[in-house]
Amino acid sequence: MAVYTEVPDDEMAAFVARYGIGDLLAVKGIAEGVSNSNFLLHTTQGFFILTLYEERVSAADLPFFLGLMEHLAERGLICPLPVKAQDGLAVSRLAGRPAAIVTFLDGLSVRRPTAAHCAEVGRGLALLHKAGEGFGMIRPNDLSVAGWRPLAEQAGAGAETVSPGLAKRVMTEIAFHEANWPRNLPHGVIHADLFPNNVFFIKDRLSGLIDFYFACTDAFAYDLAICLNAWCFEADASFNLTKGQAILAGYESVRPLTSTEVEALPVLCRGSALRFLLTRLVDWLNVPPGALVKPLDPLEYDRKLAFHQRVGDAREYGLKR
Amino acid sequence: MAVYTEVPDDEMAAFVARYGIGDLLAVKGIAEGVSNSNFLLHTTQGFFILTLYEERVSAADLPFFLGLMEHLAERGLICPLPVKAQDGLAVSRLAGRPAAIVTFLDGLSVRRPTAAHCAEVGRGLALLHKAGEGFGMIRPNDLSVAGWRPLAEQAGAGAETVSPGLAKRVMTEIAFHEANWPRNLPHGVIHADLFPNNVFFIKDRLSGLIDFYFACTDAFAYDLAICLNAWCFEADASFNLTKGQAILAGYESVRPLTSTEVEALPVLCRGSALRFLLTRLVDWLNVPPGALVKPLDPLEYDRKLAFHQRVGDAREYGLKR
Repeated sequence: MAVYTEVPDDEMAAFVARYGIGDLLAVKGIAEGVSNSNFLLHTTQGFFILTLYEERVSAADLPFFLGLMEHLAERGLICPLPVKAQDGLAVSRLAGRPAAIVTFLDGLSVRRPTAAHCAEVGRGLALLHKAGEGFGMIRPNDLSVAGWRPLAEQAGAGAETVSPGLAKRVMTEIAFHEANWPRNLPHGVIHADLFPNNVFFIKDRLSGLIDFYFACTDAFAYDLAICLNAWCFEADASFNLTKGQAILAGYESVRPLTSTEVEALPVLCRGSALRFLLTRLVDWLNVPPGALVKPLDPLEYDRKLAFHQRVGDAREYGLKR
Repeated sequence: MAVYTEVPDDEMAAFVARYGIGDLLAVKGIAEGVSNSNFLLHTTQGFFILTLYEERVSAADLPFFLGLMEHLAERGLICPLPVKAQDGLAVSRLAGRPAAIVTFLDGLSVRRPTAAHCAEVGRGLALLHKAGEGFGMIRPNDLSVAGWRPLAEQAGAGAETVSPGLAKRVMTEIAFHEANWPRNLPHGVIHADLFPNNVFFIKDRLSGLIDFYFACTDAFAYDLAICLNAWCFEADASFNLTKGQAILAGYESVRPLTSTEVEALPVLCRGSALRFLLTRLVDWLNVPPGALVKPLDPLEYDRKLAFHQRVGDAREYGLKR
């Protein structure tokens, strides 16, 4: 939650001048974003967001992320639209880092979502999946099942310092998914990180989706499983069935699930809980000294995983069939 | 450089609703400000800044600061205008802290000011002194000569760990000012902290002044001395006479200095260098663990002080007489 890179004022002005978005009137560093530095720009033509990509985002992936945002926005999904510089490129460099400017999007993220918010998110996710059709680029999901064992090895014995038995629980779960991960599900572009901080609302209506920096090509139902994890659990790790019903009904109002997706949903929920457990665990064990960002609790996803391991049927998440 | 206080979204919405500034469309935490948490608000009526005052600003002083900004803005000075809530009050409470909303001001602060910027700042400072006439409230400057000995005692022996001989240099300088501090200079409202980060420019023209949280009632020429310290030294502690000439000529184009002010200027420059040396020294020696803000170097002002101690006449700062 910070600006990691200071940009000298003359460099900033010269950079913005290359975009044909008018004269720079104001720049404010924004205190959000874990991986990147974000600045709000005001120019004589309006408000924009400038992002400097810090080391966590691979520069090689930026054409996928920014191309996707452009594709989605052109198809009516409300998301930031990358602004191209006068040389026609959406990705440039500033202060030694890859940088891009996108349009400013209004909306407020909610910290305690209601079932009404969940219904909107389900619908919004399905609209995203539909709008992604025809996008020509492919980006494999490097945080899917093949990526989990390397993450567990990175955490190593450190897992035991976080919770007794965690290392073994994780390895057993990985082995389960390596044997049982569903293949050949309907797939396309997924957001892969649609947590409440990445969804904007105005007066309870979804007003936009942001942060496409985990987007990739994978099963649509896996994206839905991520949302069930991110939106439907209460602080005490209990699953709120009303919110689950709302997300699933919202999703199916735009894109009904196939029977193979319905069947796969419990495993996908387990897998996505494991994915966030693993990345949070690695972050938890590798907090750099003087870090500005408090790492998220990996055990939240250990508890969610335990819930999913007891689910036998997608109806237990609120699916009406 | 951070947001210190998180505000739950429902509290934020309820707070903004009390101001009659339209519906909330977006909130962004701003990564600037050392003492307070600042948020940019977008509503259906425009852009605003919400400030939560953390412990460093005394709540008892807020009516002075906000009343002053209102007084100055009404008299044509470009500075943030406090917005009153529907109960008529400019200061309210949010997330357990005093809070206020002011209008958003365009402009960019410069990190490497030119002589042209200095001329604008000199003129702007004099306009501020003029616009402050008739403001009915008084706030003594608690960081003037009477406040320096307590600050030095707070630093104590720690000064020696920063630079050998510093404690003795500081005490000698304090004794000098206690004996020689000029009294009965023309006085009124001063900004008292008009550093480059508190001055906005658009295309080399001054577009606004911000951060009135050190403003107080004191000698106008002391404010000018603070600006000479803040704007006219190069990184190697050399004094840039062209910038000094620019600030002084800019100031006098609006408000000519009296002969007593001219005579007092070298002592006022020494005193203001000592004031920033002392507060930076105390901050330097008291960095809380896990602090998000890197303290400013006190020795920068030790070097500036050494320069002023060798000045015998205001003409050495660039005054044309």
